[in-house]
Amino acid sequence: MIIMKTDATKEQVEHVVKEIRSFGLRADVSKGAYKTVIGLIGDERKIPFDHFAVLPGVKEAMRVEIPYKLISREYSKFFEGVSEGVVIQVGNIRIGGDEPVFIAGPCAVESKEQLFKIAEGAKKAGAHILRGGIFKPRSSVHSFQGLGGKSLEEAEEALTWLYEAGQKFGLPVITEVRGESQVDLVAKYVDIIQIGARNMYDQDLLTRVSNKGKPVLFKRHFGAGIEEFLSFAEYIAAEGNKNIILCERGIIPIGKGKSYTRYTLDLGAVPAIQKETYLPIMVDPSHGTGRRDLIFNMSCAAIAAGASGLMLETHYDPAEALVDGPQTITPDELKDVIDTCQKIYQLTMSRRNAS
Amino acid sequence: MIIMKTDATKEQVEHVVKEIRSFGLRADVSKGAYKTVIGLIGDERKIPFDHFAVLPGVKEAMRVEIPYKLISREYSKFFEGVSEGVVIQVGNIRIGGDEPVFIAGPCAVESKEQLFKIAEGAKKAGAHILRGGIFKPRSSVHSFQGLGGKSLEEAEEALTWLYEAGQKFGLPVITEVRGESQVDLVAKYVDIIQIGARNMYDQDLLTRVSNKGKPVLFKRHFGAGIEEFLSFAEYIAAEGNKNIILCERGIIPIGKGKSYTRYTLDLGAVPAIQKETYLPIMVDPSHGTGRRDLIFNMSCAAIAAGASGLMLETHYDPAEALVDGPQTITPDELKDVIDTCQKIYQLTMSRRNAS
Amino acid sequence: MIIMKTDATKEQVEHVVKEIRSFGLRADVSKGAYKTVIGLIGDERKIPFDHFAVLPGVKEAMRVEIPYKLISREYSKFFEGVSEGVVIQVGNIRIGGDEPVFIAGPCAVESKEQLFKIAEGAKKAGAHILRGGIFKPRSSVHSFQGLGGKSLEEAEEALTWLYEAGQKFGLPVITEVRGESQVDLVAKYVDIIQIGARNMYDQDLLTRVSNKGKPVLFKRHFGAGIEEFLSFAEYIAAEGNKNIILCERGIIPIGKGKSYTRYTLDLGAVPAIQKETYLPIMVDPSHGTGRRDLIFNMSCAAIAAGASGLMLETHYDPAEALVDGPQTITPDELKDVIDTCQKIYQLTMSRRNAS
Amino acid sequence: MIIMKTDATKEQVEHVVKEIRSFGLRADVSKGAYKTVIGLIGDERKIPFDHFAVLPGVKEAMRVEIPYKLISREYSKFFEGVSEGVVIQVGNIRIGGDEPVFIAGPCAVESKEQLFKIAEGAKKAGAHILRGGIFKPRSSVHSFQGLGGKSLEEAEEALTWLYEAGQKFGLPVITEVRGESQVDLVAKYVDIIQIGARNMYDQDLLTRVSNKGKPVLFKRHFGAGIEEFLSFAEYIAAEGNKNIILCERGIIPIGKGKSYTRYTLDLGAVPAIQKETYLPIMVDPSHGTGRRDLIFNMSCAAIAAGASGLMLETHYDPAEALVDGPQTITPDELKDVIDTCQKIYQLTMSRRNAS
Repeated sequence: MIIMKTDATKEQVEHVVKEIRSFGLRADVSKGAYKTVIGLIGDERKIPFDHFAVLPGVKEAMRVEIPYKLISREYSKFFEGVSEGVVIQVGNIRIGGDEPVFIAGPCAVESKEQLFKIAEGAKKAGAHILRGGIFKPRSSVHSFQGLGGKSLEEAEEALTWLYEAGQKFGLPVITEVRGESQVDLVAKYVDIIQIGARNMYDQDLLTRVSNKGKPVLFKRHFGAGIEEFLSFAEYIAAEGNKNIILCERGIIPIGKGKSYTRYTLDLGAVPAIQKETYLPIMVDPSHGTGRRDLIFNMSCAAIAAGASGLMLETHYDPAEALVDGPQTITPDELKDVIDTCQKIYQLTMSRRNAS
Repeated sequence: MIIMKTDATKEQVEHVVKEIRSFGLRADVSKGAYKTVIGLIGDERKIPFDHFAVLPGVKEAMRVEIPYKLISREYSKFFEGVSEGVVIQVGNIRIGGDEPVFIAGPCAVESKEQLFKIAEGAKKAGAHILRGGIFKPRSSVHSFQGLGGKSLEEAEEALTWLYEAGQKFGLPVITEVRGESQVDLVAKYVDIIQIGARNMYDQDLLTRVSNKGKPVLFKRHFGAGIEEFLSFAEYIAAEGNKNIILCERGIIPIGKGKSYTRYTLDLGAVPAIQKETYLPIMVDPSHGTGRRDLIFNMSCAAIAAGASGLMLETHYDPAEALVDGPQTITPDELKDVIDTCQKIYQLTMSRRNAS
Repeated sequence: MIIMKTDATKEQVEHVVKEIRSFGLRADVSKGAYKTVIGLIGDERKIPFDHFAVLPGVKEAMRVEIPYKLISREYSKFFEGVSEGVVIQVGNIRIGGDEPVFIAGPCAVESKEQLFKIAEGAKKAGAHILRGGIFKPRSSVHSFQGLGGKSLEEAEEALTWLYEAGQKFGLPVITEVRGESQVDLVAKYVDIIQIGARNMYDQDLLTRVSNKGKPVLFKRHFGAGIEEFLSFAEYIAAEGNKNIILCERGIIPIGKGKSYTRYTLDLGAVPAIQKETYLPIMVDPSHGTGRRDLIFNMSCAAIAAGASGLMLETHYDPAEALVDGPQTITPDELKDVIDTCQKIYQLTMSRRNAS
Repeated sequence: MIIMKTDATKEQVEHVVKEIRSFGLRADVSKGAYKTVIGLIGDERKIPFDHFAVLPGVKEAMRVEIPYKLISREYSKFFEGVSEGVVIQVGNIRIGGDEPVFIAGPCAVESKEQLFKIAEGAKKAGAHILRGGIFKPRSSVHSFQGLGGKSLEEAEEALTWLYEAGQKFGLPVITEVRGESQVDLVAKYVDIIQIGARNMYDQDLLTRVSNKGKPVLFKRHFGAGIEEFLSFAEYIAAEGNKNIILCERGIIPIGKGKSYTRYTLDLGAVPAIQKETYLPIMVDPSHGTGRRDLIFNMSCAAIAAGASGLMLETHYDPAEALVDGPQTITPDELKDVIDTCQKIYQLTMSRRNAS
């Protein structure tokens, strides 16, 4: 990491960047109100920091070893205002701010009518962002693959519904992208691009999504440790896009016998991650439990643990949903969750990321 | 399970019990205000339920397959008042009632002075029960094994301190028992006997502790699934003692790389277990996180998830503690936790076990 | 699954396929010497099997529920000769036949000279197939990403080296593809396309690779159960390409404390998988142990467990390798492994897949 | 660790031991042909090694930090002949020597006749040691608990059968002890005392068993890492009994979906453990797979990985066994396993513990 002097010139910054490139690395330039900090992307072991420390305009040059340095508190503490956590703005919605944020909608978009009916219910219940799956990652090729499963044309039609529902109900929209070939299309229609748990390790996808410049909701793989999760978020940050919303959605259950929850929601990861990074983190209790009857409790627990918001699968008739019905709640249940969670958010405000 | 008629006589109940024994099983007789229910302990596949169904005084005879039937909701629904969860009473303290319960104290008792000073702080902070480890399960034979590690005489001296501290500050006391040979001694001095995570599978210990008739705090092993946890709690219930307080304290973290929490607190297990059993469940965020700086958040999360209370390692000077200092909080921090948790408990009251 | 009569005509088969499509599913047509079997791709719950059973030319129509039916023994038992396991032929090399197959080469191709020198050593040691990583999946964006990490042009140059080394030493070649955008390029140069553990869930990549028609080496993700692994292999098979070589390379270690192996090689999965599918399975002890000093033992164990071959990272100077040096062996060590493994393969021949 | 000079006197050794005790630690004195090595049991951080280095007769005094130092190669390398691994002698049987050792017999002793019939079959098949479970650790209190489950009297009768069967067929015998109260009884009748996986953490049991002075077969818990496993074996060694046979029997499977093996046999642990300790390690493929049809393959794999022998559940009619039938093999199958494993043992001799 190279910290420039307060009065460093644009030319001095450019010179440092050029020098970094000459060693085969890339540079991440963050300009604050008072100073500029340059992060190095690549293997720092090749870099002579003594040499950089005496370049014109440089105040300090130091090695940072952690694999997620660009999104780390270590890095952000040299910025003003960021060290306490960033707020990611999507339309009027502030993720990581003084109110919890709720993303709701169907697991899979099934029809325009279904989507609009759910969007209306979600809006009334107090949700802030509308979700709807179009490219569905499925464990079996023999299961319904989402409306995006057959052709990009059908996917585009569903994406326009999502866009229109967002417009009609005043909700920013989010959907998941599953492969590189879908990125351009999805980016045209949504406010936030989601990278699902199964794609967490897919570094080429991460790079391509990051370059679209839109906020990214990035889910932890169910087999990934925290260090891995943050190290792959770094792939997004390394392209210059730091509008990253992390999301915990449960890890593989261990232990013999019947599994009582679909995954094990690792809520301890929420405050642990907040000690490491300035990015906000949300929780998905739908996948994290797989059980509608546990959603209320685990939503409250997630907010109490420090989450900036929740993603909740919602449907007016869960039993009818083509995908994930058993973990889907109704708009009425959503309203209960939101009401109680808002109170818990305020009660635990002093221990949140951005405070 | 045999459900007796409302007007079944004592002789009819005894006759059924005798019949059960003739098939090599044991009987668990639960008498309610209106009816008596008899649970079968052993392999029910040998039992001719048709035969039992027509015995005098029998209303219904049915097979129950789950391995934790005596503590199951399936079983309790035939009792009046129990189906919503039992309250376990220890002195004036009600675990599973309309207030959360906090157990606090040092990981290991080190001296009489240390224990009394911590007990005083815990009491002032609002704790309800005093803990103090005397027989310490340790991963290394080369580590401090607790004051009970050298001889039963030294253990007994430490137990009297615990007893006296409880008396002085008006706090029921609890300590852990680690082997069969310690049970008689420990039972003389404490109000609740704790069986630690590492001993969860130790069925001979469970049996012996149960027979003391005192309430048992039973911790889940860090490698155990929920079904195993409840199946071993059944060993305690099978001896006739159903004053069992379950306790989630974290499972083995999975995922590559550095572990950011000592264990993974499985808070989803809290409401999941409450759907299965009428017993109350507490959470231990000290072991569950291993990090003092995460205790506040995870305490709030545990209560929000539905826990009936918390067990928290407390010390006036955590850095000085011989065992588990990094996960120990001060009495002042404890007070903060208790105050916020009490508010969250009320907010989420409608989704608790006993309501 | 639809089994056609021995004398079913081409028209009758086509009619059945057309009917299947009319229900929104796809058809997998396998023609044997005596009969044709048609697998259904998609949700069979919508299919009226009674209707299909009486179509002209149909002998039997039945529902198969397992999510990996196209690669299952259940499916293959209707073919002649396949039920004992298929042999996948690559040039003169037979994977799953009466000799074990060894894939060797550097973790990452670093230069033409390095690759040729290793290829020569591997050939002399008795290896059958040459590997060399060009697109490297890495846990950190700050680590060396392989020669394919910078541009497709540099990647193509490295691919030509791999092709030429294969030609020169008479070894079929294999490399890993990491994203959809690399598939066309890679397919031009290699004999087998590898899909790495981190991409196991990447169904769009699987589909695209399958369509190239070349044999695919498909690695199990370190967080995936066997059912998931086979269900994703089914995505490859569903495109009509059944030249799939499965590969076990280790799962996430569990348990507290230091990890003595990089991953936990799940050798029990080898015979367990062979009971489920007719596809051959190989093992990668390099990633599975992460330790050069354990490779010999675990190579022998893998073959004894029933593996059809091994993939081994090899370098003339492991300490110099840019990636994975600690788990890399020399050509001399490779020779030792191959010699002993061949003997063990023969000793345990009667319990292998294809026998 | 204190290494005495070759000519150190008995008095000098005693003086060092006395000094160690004055610091609150215990001493483990190992006398070799040429020199004596003294291990310290307890927290070495309190010890002034400089002071010990200049005591009369002391050659070297050094801190050893690993939690399993008494059983470590680090410790053993100061002994002659031990550094390559010890051989544990039971009657004429040598565990860790130049032949693999096979322990066979029923999961649970059911009757004298059953035991004798199985013992005869095991002997004919080539087994070396007879096993038979009397105190059965079971996941459910409602399952058959072994003949020791009802009373110590019935247990003693079954123990005499085991003793007599061993005498009749010339096989040393082993059984499992589950609680402290069973140790004295079991030690009277068997040649090796087994501590099962579920009791691995039960340090009071370990201590009591060790003090009987008989060889101990010590199984790894299914949730334990290697470091924990060895650290608990150290509890046995700390009592002065180093006749410890380690045993890998499978860890908890991870991954979603159906479990194809009962546990995940961690064969990589076998050579990894042999790099850490001089003790021999065996493998139990019966529990490790839970499947009779995988036993042959995984037995061969275990021996190839470096195991000194196997423990195999055997019954003349597996379908009839009261416990663990699905993972039990017949004497004929046992013979096949033994014959092939002996050949693999010889083939891989150069990489074994004791060579």
